[in-house]
Amino acid sequence: MKTYLECLPCFMNQALRAGRIATEDETIVKKLLNEVGMMIPKIPMEQSPPETGTFIYRKISELTGNSDPYRQIKNTNISKALELYPKFKKMVLESEDCLLMAIRIAIAGNIIDLGTGKKFDIEKDIDKVLHQDLAIFHYTQFKEKLEKANKILYIADNAGEAVFDKILIEELGKPVHFIVREIPVINDVTMKEAKIIGIDRIANVISSGSLAPGTILKNCDKNFVEMFRNADLIISKGQGNYESLSNEAEEIFFLLKAKCNVIARDLGVKENDIVLKYSKK
Amino acid sequence: MKTYLECLPCFMNQALRAGRIATEDETIVKKLLNEVGMMIPKIPMEQSPPETGTFIYRKISELTGNSDPYRQIKNTNISKALELYPKFKKMVLESEDCLLMAIRIAIAGNIIDLGTGKKFDIEKDIDKVLHQDLAIFHYTQFKEKLEKANKILYIADNAGEAVFDKILIEELGKPVHFIVREIPVINDVTMKEAKIIGIDRIANVISSGSLAPGTILKNCDKNFVEMFRNADLIISKGQGNYESLSNEAEEIFFLLKAKCNVIARDLGVKENDIVLKYSKK
Repeated sequence: MKTYLECLPCFMNQALRAGRIATEDETIVKKLLNEVGMMIPKIPMEQSPPETGTFIYRKISELTGNSDPYRQIKNTNISKALELYPKFKKMVLESEDCLLMAIRIAIAGNIIDLGTGKKFDIEKDIDKVLHQDLAIFHYTQFKEKLEKANKILYIADNAGEAVFDKILIEELGKPVHFIVREIPVINDVTMKEAKIIGIDRIANVISSGSLAPGTILKNCDKNFVEMFRNADLIISKGQGNYESLSNEAEEIFFLLKAKCNVIARDLGVKENDIVLKYSKK
Repeated sequence: MKTYLECLPCFMNQALRAGRIATEDETIVKKLLNEVGMMIPKIPMEQSPPETGTFIYRKISELTGNSDPYRQIKNTNISKALELYPKFKKMVLESEDCLLMAIRIAIAGNIIDLGTGKKFDIEKDIDKVLHQDLAIFHYTQFKEKLEKANKILYIADNAGEAVFDKILIEELGKPVHFIVREIPVINDVTMKEAKIIGIDRIANVISSGSLAPGTILKNCDKNFVEMFRNADLIISKGQGNYESLSNEAEEIFFLLKAKCNVIARDLGVKENDIVLKYSKK
């Protein structure tokens, strides 16, 4: 997805929110906003928003000396999600269509987002999403691809959400490569949190090498890109991965909640809609 | 009021909204956002937000060649407000406390705001505000000052709102100087709209000389500033005037709805609260 004009004020807002989580020193936050402001004219609008996000979150680390400002928030979200795990696991087991319920739960987990600035209540909002119709529902294609797939990539998004991804991976019934970020960026899942959640016991956890709040292939590890090019089934979670991968030629299933108007428009749905979208360019 | 960090992304958002109203050419809007972005590091945080607003709205005129992009919107709002005038006038006449009802109506008119980006429905929202408690209610002081006042300044805000200001001015029962902006800035009232509404028939309409979406005294006409310094009673409408006048030493009554979190915090109230605030430094 390209950068839309609406993304430009949003970058400033993201910097403000993230800066304030990383430091209480408002002069540092002001410096960060200065840097983001001066960068605005240099942003190529054809590049995806996570490329600018990379700059913002790297600047936050540089200016604050804090390389993982969302650590505590991630831990809180993981704890909360793990508490809910048995409840959702039971829902899957008791469901008429276990796979579909697991997909729903994995999409519902995508409400945990600290980039967009929307408030959320994990338990309440997930229950709401579980009762929501999917605005794009390419489930038939998903099942077809899954049946034949041997090389499955699951590109993860945020740390708390990964607990719900675990439920879906368990339902896929096939070996899965679970792809995490190389370093902490916003509240995205890294190797560290994947191990805390125990995903390493059910999937092969691999870093994409991404330093971005998304998966920008040209900046990712060669090994990962090769896996990506040769995968039979790619599952991409969340907005950041959609923004950075939506123009790739590979067949990808995007699972997300459209939490901002720009992404909703790009997907052809309404804000707050949930989607299971099959994409092939 | 000083500029808060939250104001910086808001400037970008204002530029985007206003730019898109002024032109359909997105490359011009991008240029505008570039200019605002580059200006971020240069904004002295001790200056009031309308000083930056002046820059933004002047840039819009320069880049689009459109000196009054909100003309049509202002006319629509004025028409709608004039339709409602008889209803609200009747409410004042039938009220137990006519002055208080007129103040309430004048504050309610402040929902018409195109700077903050909040959506509004003039008739519905005004009815709502009329039933809302005032979070700051310096009515006793207002009546005391009004009784003794001979030199009354009424510093107006937006064009549609001015129809409701007319109702309050009629209730004040004293000669009033109605202060408008020198040039069109957002949807603020200028001499032209004051005449369309007929305020010139009940008050002495004067331009403050302001080119800002507020009243920045150091940039206003000398004559107006002298009137300001010597007034017995100053009534200031809306956010922009509050932001630019809240640190002045004169006794001012601020009538507004706090439509953004920053102004609410500065006033010590909650977002969406309405206030009649007496200020003296």
